[in-house]
Amino acid sequence: MESIPEENRYALRGVSSGKEEVHQAIQNLDQGLFPDAFCRILPDLAGDNNYVSVMHADGAGTKSSLAYIYWKETGDLSVWEGIAQDAIVMNTDDLLCAGIYSDILLVSTIGRSKHKIPGEIISTLIQGTEKFLEELRKYGSSIYSAGGETADVGDLVRTIIVDASVYARAEKSRIIRNKTVQAGDVIVGLASDGLTNWDSSWNSGIGSNGLTSARHDLLHSEYLIKYPESLDGATPKNVVYQGPWKVTDTPAEIPVNVGKAILSPTRTFIPLMLPILKNYQDKIHGMIHTTGGGHTKCLHYLPAGIKIIKNNFPTLPWIFQQIHKYSGISWKQMYSTFNMGIRMEIYTDLHTAEMIIKEASKMNLGAYIIGHCEPTSDHALEIHHTRDTKIYYP
Amino acid sequence: MESIPEENRYALRGVSSGKEEVHQAIQNLDQGLFPDAFCRILPDLAGDNNYVSVMHADGAGTKSSLAYIYWKETGDLSVWEGIAQDAIVMNTDDLLCAGIYSDILLVSTIGRSKHKIPGEIISTLIQGTEKFLEELRKYGSSIYSAGGETADVGDLVRTIIVDASVYARAEKSRIIRNKTVQAGDVIVGLASDGLTNWDSSWNSGIGSNGLTSARHDLLHSEYLIKYPESLDGATPKNVVYQGPWKVTDTPAEIPVNVGKAILSPTRTFIPLMLPILKNYQDKIHGMIHTTGGGHTKCLHYLPAGIKIIKNNFPTLPWIFQQIHKYSGISWKQMYSTFNMGIRMEIYTDLHTAEMIIKEASKMNLGAYIIGHCEPTSDHALEIHHTRDTKIYYP
Repeated sequence: MESIPEENRYALRGVSSGKEEVHQAIQNLDQGLFPDAFCRILPDLAGDNNYVSVMHADGAGTKSSLAYIYWKETGDLSVWEGIAQDAIVMNTDDLLCAGIYSDILLVSTIGRSKHKIPGEIISTLIQGTEKFLEELRKYGSSIYSAGGETADVGDLVRTIIVDASVYARAEKSRIIRNKTVQAGDVIVGLASDGLTNWDSSWNSGIGSNGLTSARHDLLHSEYLIKYPESLDGATPKNVVYQGPWKVTDTPAEIPVNVGKAILSPTRTFIPLMLPILKNYQDKIHGMIHTTGGGHTKCLHYLPAGIKIIKNNFPTLPWIFQQIHKYSGISWKQMYSTFNMGIRMEIYTDLHTAEMIIKEASKMNLGAYIIGHCEPTSDHALEIHHTRDTKIYYP
Repeated sequence: MESIPEENRYALRGVSSGKEEVHQAIQNLDQGLFPDAFCRILPDLAGDNNYVSVMHADGAGTKSSLAYIYWKETGDLSVWEGIAQDAIVMNTDDLLCAGIYSDILLVSTIGRSKHKIPGEIISTLIQGTEKFLEELRKYGSSIYSAGGETADVGDLVRTIIVDASVYARAEKSRIIRNKTVQAGDVIVGLASDGLTNWDSSWNSGIGSNGLTSARHDLLHSEYLIKYPESLDGATPKNVVYQGPWKVTDTPAEIPVNVGKAILSPTRTFIPLMLPILKNYQDKIHGMIHTTGGGHTKCLHYLPAGIKIIKNNFPTLPWIFQQIHKYSGISWKQMYSTFNMGIRMEIYTDLHTAEMIIKEASKMNLGAYIIGHCEPTSDHALEIHHTRDTKIYYP
């Protein structure tokens, strides 16, 4: 562990966990019909006042840089199917938080360096997209690919960048408005790790956020020499690939190698939440996808007058323990960067919470009451890392 | 001029003008309701059989790498507004070719290296997007931004990549089906260069295609030293920045400096074509946006049994003369990479063609009958570069 202050590690690596600059740039733009919904909600393009339109964009981020290293080291093309899934789920599970789970179209945008990324990777990404959308349709989500764009842009992209955009149409009355979160609500947390009935393999829980940190804090410096194209050459050498692990290492604590652990495809919560939203949507007061900003993301959407107390996290998954151990990042920063084992939060009453947890259990998904909401005159978030370590935001 | 064969120049620079690999990867995917339309046409998400849905993705490509150099050299932020316009028009004018010009939502996807690209560039891109969409609305197109994603992905992106996706809803009966192109049709070509009534500045005509070639064949080798982040370091040095020009040079033949010429924002044809499609859509048999694949793009969409003869191009704009001069690319390759001064083709009857040319003239847009269609037993394209230089495709 080194002596570089944590806020500097981020700046040095050219990432920001909270996107302050972006929030500043978009602050004057129209916030849509329901600024408290998790996605920007617009009037229905078909002109029906009972419906709304949503369009959204997200991607697999720097996770594709690790997929590149893993593929180079092992020849295993299947990791690119995981990257396709990451780009999709970062979109669909944002929509899910707005109460939207069906009538979705998706386009993919792929930019690659043709020198580095052969056509078989593009094929695997495109086929992986179709395959995962078919999976989602099995769980009742009507979601279809509408095509996409693959561009050879080696002068811009070192290896490959994989993004997706979605459009959805939904009933206006069924949009989840986070402003309805109230004192007395409990918070159900859905696990990002483990092996549910619908996963095809064990998941470390990492998701698609904080991957620049996860890669550089966990992976071995030999990758700096072997794959300089996997990172920004301008980043100071003392913050890149500082970890102990090679991607093919197999720690005793986890059932897959380190590379596959960090590459675990972002799990969708559609199989659990689609039937719940269909039948009990009026009971769900708020839903937050703990992506950029991690467990502080709720502060962007939840109403004033509510103190959010998260005091019952399950055991921290191995991957986040490792990142903490090797990065030296404070717990406060950890919770505002990573999902820490809980990738979705549902704000609801105790009765509905217990029902969700029971349904999750049947599907082998970890689900816990991780906290609750109290009245306050402030706009506050309290995370109890341990009984004695309380962290206060903002 | 050097001795590297033209097909190798492309391979060495890691680009492909015809996207053979991508076409191979997507060949098994569903082609939508009308495979002959310029965009993939899907059933209406709102379930109305008289309407269709379209979703599309494209971007500014490597043009942003030049915007980066220009901004570093001059401090002029306004070129980023042009990049925003490029990403938008590459989408809207593809939709236009399918007959769609309104009821459009757009999201932007920006990936940047935070080390290289400060927040003011992100702000300019986001504001530039809003400003250009407002312009389009003035011309009768109902198009709105639905938000977007800006990601700090310096480990993937050298400088900045700017993409956009659009969703549109349109009347099924108004979709342009290129299969209706017939022997006897003439081809109206719309100019990519000049200064129309709706442009804010003179346009070189370059558009957003072939920019990797335009940059490397026209710009001076000093940029290799000054801005190594503006290109793929793995590209052999004998095919990068091989040209005579610095971005602030001001050749006598054009009214702007070389940087602004190559950065000319891609012009939209909505101001001319929206009223024409509104009133005469049944007369338009086909429309082709001469982007990837340039003047051979028509071969992907036009029916068999038609020979396309383009024998009346206007004077080649300065920018393409320069690229030909300094790249040594053959005329055959030039026409299958660049728009060569004609960025849109309209296949129609002679009477409608004359009406379009008259309307274009009122708006100071160059428009010409550049060719016609003849019956053939084959699937063929003939381009007459000069009276004596005929080029045959495929």
